[in-house]
Amino acid sequence: MLTLYHCHDARSFRPLWTLEELAVETGGPAYELKMLPFPPRVFQKSYLEINPLGTIPALFDEGKRMTESAAICQYLVTRYGPTSLAVSPDEADYGPFLNFLHFGEATLTFPQTLVLRYRFFEPDERKLPQAADDYAKWFLARLRLIEQMTGEQEYLCADRFTAADISVGYAILLAHSVGLAGELGPNVRAYWERLSGREGFKRAKAVQLKAAEEQGVPVPKIGVAK
Amino acid sequence: MLTLYHCHDARSFRPLWTLEELAVETGGPAYELKMLPFPPRVFQKSYLEINPLGTIPALFDEGKRMTESAAICQYLVTRYGPTSLAVSPDEADYGPFLNFLHFGEATLTFPQTLVLRYRFFEPDERKLPQAADDYAKWFLARLRLIEQMTGEQEYLCADRFTAADISVGYAILLAHSVGLAGELGPNVRAYWERLSGREGFKRAKAVQLKAAEEQGVPVPKIGVAK
Repeated sequence: MLTLYHCHDARSFRPLWTLEELAVETGGPAYELKMLPFPPRVFQKSYLEINPLGTIPALFDEGKRMTESAAICQYLVTRYGPTSLAVSPDEADYGPFLNFLHFGEATLTFPQTLVLRYRFFEPDERKLPQAADDYAKWFLARLRLIEQMTGEQEYLCADRFTAADISVGYAILLAHSVGLAGELGPNVRAYWERLSGREGFKRAKAVQLKAAEEQGVPVPKIGVAK
Repeated sequence: MLTLYHCHDARSFRPLWTLEELAVETGGPAYELKMLPFPPRVFQKSYLEINPLGTIPALFDEGKRMTESAAICQYLVTRYGPTSLAVSPDEADYGPFLNFLHFGEATLTFPQTLVLRYRFFEPDERKLPQAADDYAKWFLARLRLIEQMTGEQEYLCADRFTAADISVGYAILLAHSVGLAGELGPNVRAYWERLSGREGFKRAKAVQLKAAEEQGVPVPKIGVAK
């Protein structure tokens, strides 16, 4: 059975959302969800034995460990398909599909973690408003491509909702937590309404709350999208 | 024909290296290499019409644009295979393959760009030694996983050299440019010798120098691995 280690609304929300989209579309693979307090490397040190990086997510399947959230999304929709969430190598939009899977994390999520770190998480004497501002601006500049694209099409590639939308959609969820929601353009807001209105998204949101309650894991205040 | 926009030793070195590995193994697809001065958004503003993000690489194939270097590697080895550089979905290490493709960029490369930016590129009044040190430390902590793995196996997955090694290998190349080579562990150094000794790597290095000379594009001092 698949096991996913997850913190509320953290990057591991990408695989959780993917699993719930698969459940809606195909019945999906069974999985166990293990909730952790955030950040696990501080509040649950035993997690370092499961993932020495201390990062989340960690997914275990057939004895193999994966720790990169966007890679896990591609893995799940390829291994547990066929599903409309995957774009196959013989489709015209296979390249854009791979591209936006990576773009969601490497280009749209990492810069926001700088904002979180230097504006909120660090103690006052280590806060760096310049770095936080630099990377908020950096994120918003890259997001302009998504603003343009979502003005012309409903989803990012292949004329349908795919795992690439989950990768980029998580970056938009994070923007709400980071306090950047007010800077999103009208097309990205409408795109976000389409994504967050999906049955799979709502199920993933409900599943993480229920699992946290059952497992007695606190739900953090920062990292909660409004 | 494939067209790759490239700056010397920038992230676009990943697709260039992949193309040259394909050329060695299978004859590979024909491609056109367009060299740009670094950073193109400053020194060649017309590039913004080709890639509005201003980032490199940009790959064009069959009318589609890709801008994420690790995604392009996966695309090339899947679309222009069969090749040993790809790990297919029915192999046991498909998950780790995808994972390290992403890990090389999102986890090992982005933090180093913070070091470059705040230690070297920004004017003195905007340099941030704390942020540079934080992300040098962050990179080296994540690299410990590669140090451990490469002590036990020659390559990252599937018992052979794959595009995942190109993704992570580029992060090690960048560490040399960023001044972090002295911090690499013995296993990573030996792994780097294996990677940089490959025919495909050496061809990619030679191709970019020749193209820069032919196209009259200067080779930058920062961004050149020793």
